[in-house]
Amino acid sequence: MRNLMLKICYDGANYHGWQIQQNAVSVQQVFQEALLKVLGEKPDIKGCSRTDSFVHAREYCISLKTGHEIPCERLVGALNHFLPEDMAVLSCCEAAPDFHARYSCTGKEYVYQIWNSQIRNPFLNRRALYYWYELDVERLNEAAACFLGAHDFTSFCTLDARERGNMTRTVTRAEVKREGNLVTFTVAADGFMYNMVRIMVGTLLRVAQGKFEPQDVAGIIEAKSRKAAGPTAPPYGLYLNRVFYEDVKSV
Amino acid sequence: MRNLMLKICYDGANYHGWQIQQNAVSVQQVFQEALLKVLGEKPDIKGCSRTDSFVHAREYCISLKTGHEIPCERLVGALNHFLPEDMAVLSCCEAAPDFHARYSCTGKEYVYQIWNSQIRNPFLNRRALYYWYELDVERLNEAAACFLGAHDFTSFCTLDARERGNMTRTVTRAEVKREGNLVTFTVAADGFMYNMVRIMVGTLLRVAQGKFEPQDVAGIIEAKSRKAAGPTAPPYGLYLNRVFYEDVKSV
Repeated sequence: MRNLMLKICYDGANYHGWQIQQNAVSVQQVFQEALLKVLGEKPDIKGCSRTDSFVHAREYCISLKTGHEIPCERLVGALNHFLPEDMAVLSCCEAAPDFHARYSCTGKEYVYQIWNSQIRNPFLNRRALYYWYELDVERLNEAAACFLGAHDFTSFCTLDARERGNMTRTVTRAEVKREGNLVTFTVAADGFMYNMVRIMVGTLLRVAQGKFEPQDVAGIIEAKSRKAAGPTAPPYGLYLNRVFYEDVKSV
Repeated sequence: MRNLMLKICYDGANYHGWQIQQNAVSVQQVFQEALLKVLGEKPDIKGCSRTDSFVHAREYCISLKTGHEIPCERLVGALNHFLPEDMAVLSCCEAAPDFHARYSCTGKEYVYQIWNSQIRNPFLNRRALYYWYELDVERLNEAAACFLGAHDFTSFCTLDARERGNMTRTVTRAEVKREGNLVTFTVAADGFMYNMVRIMVGTLLRVAQGKFEPQDVAGIIEAKSRKAAGPTAPPYGLYLNRVFYEDVKSV
């Protein structure tokens, strides 16, 4: 059996996240249907993360095992032919037999986009959070710096049956930038918990509103309580931007 | 009566152009319905251009006469409340009594976006033309330079009952740029005829394919025949980018 690693991207506005579920269209389902058309089989595919409904991915990683002999480059072209236009395969390569899109992942980077203007941007509808009041990027960066390093992020996790065990994650990048009216929050870590980035953004917006001071974020982390943090920001502004691995290739 | 000038922008993917028509939703219709909700009347509104189905506008200008006393700033807010999310009012000001969005216009600038990569971009679905083969920007600029100046653009006009009289337009800017995989063609002129930018792009793509040489464009203009030029490029990549006026304000 070959073990393949595929990188894809998708506009998540029309999908209920990655994972297959009943009564809602997911990215995994659409992807498996395209695979069935190309390979004539429905291999079990592993995604690098669950991703929430309506969240986007500029780079999402999939692994799958197949006995089919189609060359990688042809698989990319054939899948792109059958996938809908809001989804695309970026690349495909042979991976080591033990490679797993989720368990082999050593880190991820997310970007959250905010359109910060008194007038909404029709071209960022369902692609960014539209936020009216002017954001002070310097103040937000002061708060975001508190996320850096290894912390127990219980305060930044929606508790459900899926989250168990170690709640410590190491954040290696957390910064806010402005380009015209577009404000972006970029955060990289060795892993993320359920809704973690969206709760970070909801908390940063509370800082913007003066309801928290930037230095309060350290205390919110220490509280280890979801109630200490701000609300969960809407999914439309969130992009899985990059996924990190070591030694993927088998050859 | 006040004469108002409004600037709006819209994602045209869901609209059959500006002008009201039967059996299809147009930007003008949606805009007039929002005006009716805000002003309690349906003033006759003038648009700066017809714009084709599915074409976008980053800046589109409207003029309308009303006796309503609502301040300009409040009108912007109220219209944005009632308009759908793929449309927005950018600004509103009082204009001189004889100001007319179409007849007072002294020039327009269009941008045509091409996603030039072997892999499509899901985030530019219905926002750009997806073009697989690598485009040589230098070669395209050589061809685009032929558009500059005053010419009879009959070869770049879809003939229909709407186009009559003088076919001469003065092009003041025509250039192709690349930013990563995104190639844009920007063209400004004192006026544009039906499908003119889309036929210019279709002709540039023929140059890219080697079916025309860059210097052939001068001869295509001289031929004054639609058959001499390339095909009409798809509407999705086209944006009305800016609209130019002199002395709009009444105060």
